[in-house]
Amino acid sequence: MGSEFEEREKKRRMLIERAKSGIAEAYSSEEYPLMQAISTYLEIDKIMNLVYERLNEWYSLYFPELKLSNPESYARFVVSFGMDKKKVEKGKLAELLGSKAAEEVARLAEQSMGREPNSDEYVAIKEVASNYLRLSDVQKAIDAYLAAATKRVMPNVSYIIDYHIAAELLGKAGSLEKLATMPSSTIQLLGAEKAFFKHLKYGSKSPKYGIIFKLADISNGKRELRGKIARVYANKISIAAKADAFSKRFIADELKAGLESAIKRIQASEGKGKEHKF
Amino acid sequence: MGSEFEEREKKRRMLIERAKSGIAEAYSSEEYPLMQAISTYLEIDKIMNLVYERLNEWYSLYFPELKLSNPESYARFVVSFGMDKKKVEKGKLAELLGSKAAEEVARLAEQSMGREPNSDEYVAIKEVASNYLRLSDVQKAIDAYLAAATKRVMPNVSYIIDYHIAAELLGKAGSLEKLATMPSSTIQLLGAEKAFFKHLKYGSKSPKYGIIFKLADISNGKRELRGKIARVYANKISIAAKADAFSKRFIADELKAGLESAIKRIQASEGKGKEHKF
Repeated sequence: MGSEFEEREKKRRMLIERAKSGIAEAYSSEEYPLMQAISTYLEIDKIMNLVYERLNEWYSLYFPELKLSNPESYARFVVSFGMDKKKVEKGKLAELLGSKAAEEVARLAEQSMGREPNSDEYVAIKEVASNYLRLSDVQKAIDAYLAAATKRVMPNVSYIIDYHIAAELLGKAGSLEKLATMPSSTIQLLGAEKAFFKHLKYGSKSPKYGIIFKLADISNGKRELRGKIARVYANKISIAAKADAFSKRFIADELKAGLESAIKRIQASEGKGKEHKF
Repeated sequence: MGSEFEEREKKRRMLIERAKSGIAEAYSSEEYPLMQAISTYLEIDKIMNLVYERLNEWYSLYFPELKLSNPESYARFVVSFGMDKKKVEKGKLAELLGSKAAEEVARLAEQSMGREPNSDEYVAIKEVASNYLRLSDVQKAIDAYLAAATKRVMPNVSYIIDYHIAAELLGKAGSLEKLATMPSSTIQLLGAEKAFFKHLKYGSKSPKYGIIFKLADISNGKRELRGKIARVYANKISIAAKADAFSKRFIADELKAGLESAIKRIQASEGKGKEHKF
């Protein structure tokens, strides 16, 4: 009886071990960190906007006239010159903004209505500004990882479209296998789930694209061609994902050539055989 | 005629100057940076939660068994030991977690199902973890400013309640003068505007407190006494704010003594003369 128990116990342990190694193997795929990385990247994008908004509102108390189109330059200005804007060294300012903008900013600082921050205030706001810059470094580190990892995990897909968008599609699909087995019409709408369900439920207009709208060919394309171009892209992405998930062959050269000529055809046929509306 | 024009021009400039210096004076009050600081402080609170969530989800791929109650310790673990959790030096780990928890974590690391991150992945996730720690430094810098500035701007209010809550009330009110001229019942509900308008519009239960719910005496108080204690606090805060805004005298010692004895009275009278509930 003792040995029967031992036998059973041995079997139980073996099964647990097998399950564990199965899970470990599943998690060992680089798909998972890649999906984590893209969602962190997108989150940090939002966070940077929030931090910049706060920084801008706060520092506007001291220098309401300062308008810079680049948030990073704004943060650098606060870090380097925020303590006393009137004592700005023009040479250093020109290094940051270029000499023409530096001239203008120095003039605005001279006439500014804002008082200087006291040193307590400056310590705090400088921390906020330098954190903005640190966030942009974090962003860059994740970006470098995304560029490398998408090449390894989905070499075909990331060859034909921007690797951020490739990673985002992967994240929305949930795994490379899922992305590869989706109909291309689903790929076309990945990320537009809300609009799509609204369409099904309330009969609002069906969305034509989800995440892939971010592709320049689509977002910068003529409005009436976007749907067609999106369809072509989704189709090629679907083929590329199948190659990445299953055959592991690199076929993206041909895919890209096919894609480009298809888009040219669509653009050339514009106006001819246009669908009639209403 | 020339001189009339010059006269008028001079007047115009003078008026502009006067308006400018009026605005500059208004902005020179430390109330404004204080309000900016508290709203940045609260925003960074939220951001830290977001970053921790992402860090935790990501690093769980490598060490799913790791559960630490303190997010800062978790981030430090990733920074110091995240590259290879099985090679953790127990002495160093004990410095971070205490020897008992270190023992347990080392054991979990030994048996963990997660693989180690590759170096690409580690560079990226380490950035995320160390940014979490940086955010906590930003938080501390702003906190130091808040502590000092509330003492200057609202010495009475920040003497009788926590300075974060004092600053938050100021921010919601919009200025010290506005806070000082509010009825104390409004102070009691500051920050509960949504619930209050819902009450007016739909007849739902009226809220009993807004921001001041965060005061330990209220949030840890007995449920049936909270409303009364909140009323007493709001009343004293209102008097304190008037002193901060107008008389500029320090009367918070007496206020605090009065507050404490009022709360004691409320707690002592518990049960006697209770309203009937069905």
